[in-house]
Amino acid sequence: MTDASTNMRLKLPVTCFILEIILIILFGALVEYDHETDAKLWHNQTHSDYDNDFYYRYPSFQDVHVMIFIGFGFLMTFLQRYGFGSVGFNFLIAAFALQWATLMQGFFHGMHHGKIHIGVESMINADFCTGSVLISFGAVLGKTSPVQLLIMAMFEVTLFAVNEYILLTLLGVKDAGGSMTIHTFGAYFGLMVTRVLYRPNLDKSKNRNCSVYHSDMFAMIGTIYLWMFWPSFNSAITAHGDDQHRTAMNTYYSLAACTLATYGMSALTAHDGKLDMVHIQNAALAGGVAAGTAGEMMLTPFGSMIVGFLAGVISVLGFKYLSPHLESKLKIQDTCGVHNLHGMPGVLGAIVGAVTASVATMDVYGEGMNDVFPEIVKGRSASTQGGYQALGLAITLGIALLGGAIVGVILKTPIFGAPPDTICFEDNIYWEVPGEEESHDAQLTEVVPAENQKLNV
Amino acid sequence: MTDASTNMRLKLPVTCFILEIILIILFGALVEYDHETDAKLWHNQTHSDYDNDFYYRYPSFQDVHVMIFIGFGFLMTFLQRYGFGSVGFNFLIAAFALQWATLMQGFFHGMHHGKIHIGVESMINADFCTGSVLISFGAVLGKTSPVQLLIMAMFEVTLFAVNEYILLTLLGVKDAGGSMTIHTFGAYFGLMVTRVLYRPNLDKSKNRNCSVYHSDMFAMIGTIYLWMFWPSFNSAITAHGDDQHRTAMNTYYSLAACTLATYGMSALTAHDGKLDMVHIQNAALAGGVAAGTAGEMMLTPFGSMIVGFLAGVISVLGFKYLSPHLESKLKIQDTCGVHNLHGMPGVLGAIVGAVTASVATMDVYGEGMNDVFPEIVKGRSASTQGGYQALGLAITLGIALLGGAIVGVILKTPIFGAPPDTICFEDNIYWEVPGEEESHDAQLTEVVPAENQKLNV
Amino acid sequence: MTDASTNMRLKLPVTCFILEIILIILFGALVEYDHETDAKLWHNQTHSDYDNDFYYRYPSFQDVHVMIFIGFGFLMTFLQRYGFGSVGFNFLIAAFALQWATLMQGFFHGMHHGKIHIGVESMINADFCTGSVLISFGAVLGKTSPVQLLIMAMFEVTLFAVNEYILLTLLGVKDAGGSMTIHTFGAYFGLMVTRVLYRPNLDKSKNRNCSVYHSDMFAMIGTIYLWMFWPSFNSAITAHGDDQHRTAMNTYYSLAACTLATYGMSALTAHDGKLDMVHIQNAALAGGVAAGTAGEMMLTPFGSMIVGFLAGVISVLGFKYLSPHLESKLKIQDTCGVHNLHGMPGVLGAIVGAVTASVATMDVYGEGMNDVFPEIVKGRSASTQGGYQALGLAITLGIALLGGAIVGVILKTPIFGAPPDTICFEDNIYWEVPGEEESHDAQLTEVVPAENQKLNV
Repeated sequence: MTDASTNMRLKLPVTCFILEIILIILFGALVEYDHETDAKLWHNQTHSDYDNDFYYRYPSFQDVHVMIFIGFGFLMTFLQRYGFGSVGFNFLIAAFALQWATLMQGFFHGMHHGKIHIGVESMINADFCTGSVLISFGAVLGKTSPVQLLIMAMFEVTLFAVNEYILLTLLGVKDAGGSMTIHTFGAYFGLMVTRVLYRPNLDKSKNRNCSVYHSDMFAMIGTIYLWMFWPSFNSAITAHGDDQHRTAMNTYYSLAACTLATYGMSALTAHDGKLDMVHIQNAALAGGVAAGTAGEMMLTPFGSMIVGFLAGVISVLGFKYLSPHLESKLKIQDTCGVHNLHGMPGVLGAIVGAVTASVATMDVYGEGMNDVFPEIVKGRSASTQGGYQALGLAITLGIALLGGAIVGVILKTPIFGAPPDTICFEDNIYWEVPGEEESHDAQLTEVVPAENQKLNV
Repeated sequence: MTDASTNMRLKLPVTCFILEIILIILFGALVEYDHETDAKLWHNQTHSDYDNDFYYRYPSFQDVHVMIFIGFGFLMTFLQRYGFGSVGFNFLIAAFALQWATLMQGFFHGMHHGKIHIGVESMINADFCTGSVLISFGAVLGKTSPVQLLIMAMFEVTLFAVNEYILLTLLGVKDAGGSMTIHTFGAYFGLMVTRVLYRPNLDKSKNRNCSVYHSDMFAMIGTIYLWMFWPSFNSAITAHGDDQHRTAMNTYYSLAACTLATYGMSALTAHDGKLDMVHIQNAALAGGVAAGTAGEMMLTPFGSMIVGFLAGVISVLGFKYLSPHLESKLKIQDTCGVHNLHGMPGVLGAIVGAVTASVATMDVYGEGMNDVFPEIVKGRSASTQGGYQALGLAITLGIALLGGAIVGVILKTPIFGAPPDTICFEDNIYWEVPGEEESHDAQLTEVVPAENQKLNV
Repeated sequence: MTDASTNMRLKLPVTCFILEIILIILFGALVEYDHETDAKLWHNQTHSDYDNDFYYRYPSFQDVHVMIFIGFGFLMTFLQRYGFGSVGFNFLIAAFALQWATLMQGFFHGMHHGKIHIGVESMINADFCTGSVLISFGAVLGKTSPVQLLIMAMFEVTLFAVNEYILLTLLGVKDAGGSMTIHTFGAYFGLMVTRVLYRPNLDKSKNRNCSVYHSDMFAMIGTIYLWMFWPSFNSAITAHGDDQHRTAMNTYYSLAACTLATYGMSALTAHDGKLDMVHIQNAALAGGVAAGTAGEMMLTPFGSMIVGFLAGVISVLGFKYLSPHLESKLKIQDTCGVHNLHGMPGVLGAIVGAVTASVATMDVYGEGMNDVFPEIVKGRSASTQGGYQALGLAITLGIALLGGAIVGVILKTPIFGAPPDTICFEDNIYWEVPGEEESHDAQLTEVVPAENQKLNV
């Protein structure tokens, strides 16, 4: 049913096996338990079992994990014929990316005598990096082969780790929930990839580039999980104590305000005053993205709600008025509208973070300043910290756009098996798709009652 | 496609924006971080980071959050053409209610120098109050506009906070899982609202007031999540230590026993000995409702199982024999049967709580009495505590019924845009509904194979 | 619509009520709060509230609970006409099994003055035992009545407790995540039951023994939840501190490697290089099964990834080449392919555990040896421990196969109401199934637009 180039019989196994074997070899050579996961090291010290970071962070990790695999996976199932690809390729590239991210982040964020030490915090960071790849996946959804996606993930994880290293380690920028490092980076990287992979004849597949009733219901599973667990996402790697607590609460209120803005804007802008599922599924989440940098700061619930409200408004306006122009003018075919959910709200979050940092005072933070802005405690002024935050955004945009352009060119290699313009947004090309329900309904009216009649005799 | 009164183009945005702006202003004026979320206040004291209530309660909060947004949202998707409305309006009114509840509960449960202090416990309480609104939503499901629902939520949250204040603060009643304050209140409030909004011609929409195969599957997602996380719900705000532990375990066994009772009763009462999905989706949860008051007490697993078993039996009998009479005789059109899931089991839970309290002794509770019944430690007798518990139920019923009647009258205002009797239980009136799968299947047989053939050439 | 023998009107209520009444009586006579859930006992001691095991284990318990009710329940919804039965019977037998398991495990694992003491750890163990029953359910899915399933659960839980007692208590075998006690036991028990219940004419129902598009999507919900929370499953009852932390991390990497192996093998072996949903839904989980014994040991992420990779390869090969032969040659009709997901990977996990145990040294484990291998600290040599581990596998296989054979014979009793060969894999026989969407679509085109036109006048 598929032509030679899109047949995955050899391409996908070769890619998966080579990548996994490389991963296993590198893990064997480089990765070690850290002092909280190693039986000997942990028991060498005197402490309560509760001091183990597992109890501080594992519940947050599990929430993040759900966002990555259920949240992103099901959010993308809105397409009528791409449910297997959405949740299935999401599963594949996330499983690869989290392993690769463990290595890449380990390289950049501190080797210990030539070894990478891992534990629950590195697991959260690996999931975060994976989230960035999945955002980019949203931009190219339905137009790429699984081999292309694995190749993209490999390069994107690497560049993510570089960008994260520059921001967090070299510049001392704060970005706990990743407005910059995860959302802005993932969105603009993906937008550039999809720009380079521009398909002038994509409208040949446009009849499948939309939802049906049930696919929208599946997508809402993704949306609601992302919405519910975003407080855990933003707070997962902030400092213990008040920082985790405050970040979760700020995000909770930002999202709630964003949701009301989204429903209002959707009814206002959509046809006939009816709500548009695309807005509800996506824009209602922008409040979590926009609280990704400032969420751990003393933003206050009041500030968080303003930020969330603005993010919701911007996101719906983006879906309604900007996305069509991005496609027609700039040739950016953004399947999931990641520019509206992750791009613009990510930039908003970065700006809010820079402004909030620039007004930080000891009067407000007290001894807690050391957790939130250690550089300010070391002598950097608040306004300088704000400047560094803004610089972080600029660097992120630069690396994402440049990286996305290069990776886009690499992905054009025909051997990677991209689908033709006529069979985009279609599971049938890479998946065994079972028979339709039509046949099953037909069978029901024919077979089952007959069987039952027999039984009643 | 809709007439003027149900068109939400201006009504919904105006309502959302006004409500959210009021919320933001009030939060700015009144709400502050508590000493566990404020950077300065937290670091002023000497303590371990683990003393932060975040680590005691945040996992429970997240489970409650899932129940509110996934549990209630998907439980109501059983209607064949109201999936968007069920999960989507649930999302909207919950996002509003949790913000409004933060303020209302803050007003009544203790201002600090004119400010409301918030943290994870207030977040759980806000979610609890939201749960009550969603129960009422179940009674009017499919027959109300989103504007009506927001107005209802605004009034109901306010009355909830008043009732909760009277019970918990003034009377010293115990109700950690909210058999009274959440379930009984939400159910009878909603039943009275739907009574006032009685639609004599609702049978014009009765062809949509039922499920299809897939909508029942989506509803089971809601059911199972509610069932699994009810132990977290009932234990979320009980005292640290044995209290949280015991409450979760009592609820676990109450639900398990309830489930066997539900399956047994469903097969016994339903047509031809076949199980009825309505019973499974709802009655199996009654054991959680009924353990909402006594769950934190020394009810024992044995007692919990008896309570759960009775709740399941009562709930199925209610669906089978009482609900039809409520509609035909009392003109109460209860879409989801909240009377059977939350109403009667809530009253049962209140009674069980009163009885259990009235037999509390120091011999059984020891030093733990102070956590469970502080009033008894202060001198109130156990039987008096039982009497107060019963009084709490009476007050809850009174406020719910009176409040529901008044709010029902308010909601009759035509400008709120209720759907006509002929288009109830229908997403199409408030939502952009995508094309049906029929067309997609047709497209598949026509388009895709053709494309594929071309490729094979 | 059904004949007398499959009519559940009396059989199911009688079974449910008798079982639940027996459970309630036994709980009343035998079960007590342990010192962490009892108000008096907990407050008799001096400790921090955090010392309560609730805070160490409840988040893990909730993840396990989700795996049992959502994970297993939805994984089995892949059949086109058995969604109600999959998630609904899963719900029923799990609710029964967890109560019965509390008693059986209590009997065998330590009575206290004639009483069974329960808390969060016993809840986790009860859920674990339930998981084993659900694995066996997968082997007989679609071919058994709910009464048969309850009877099977009753016997299987009892034998599970016996086997677990022999392994963990008598032999000092380590099996925290249950590669042997849960997966191997459940799989081979179920395979033997389905062998005894062999249906030579099952191909009369083969048109329903497959998936449709939406049922595969529902099944992916189960798959992804099992995959995400398997780290919590394997670590739920390991020792506090580094043990829980390490076990979760080992499982995380085992699963990630398994996923890449699964995708690669699926494309390699399936038709036309297309991915097969059966492989993705099942084989990608084999890495969790295979890390169930050695996950708590110092397996290293490197070792975990190798184990996961092998498990994925074996599992896909099993689905592709072994299952058809099991059915045609050995007459084992394994609906869900539990041999491939739980059977072979469980045996692999047991072997890996034996090998890993046999090379344990104080040099690697340090003081942590006492948590992982207390028998070695007491004097047993590492290689002896490895031998005991292997013995544990042999005993598990023996009890599972023998027990399954006996229980299979019991289940053949006609009064239990098994479905006829012609109506297997069909919800309609035990459930009220709502009308199909066909009628609803017809209704839509006829009724709703007409109504709307009226409104527009």
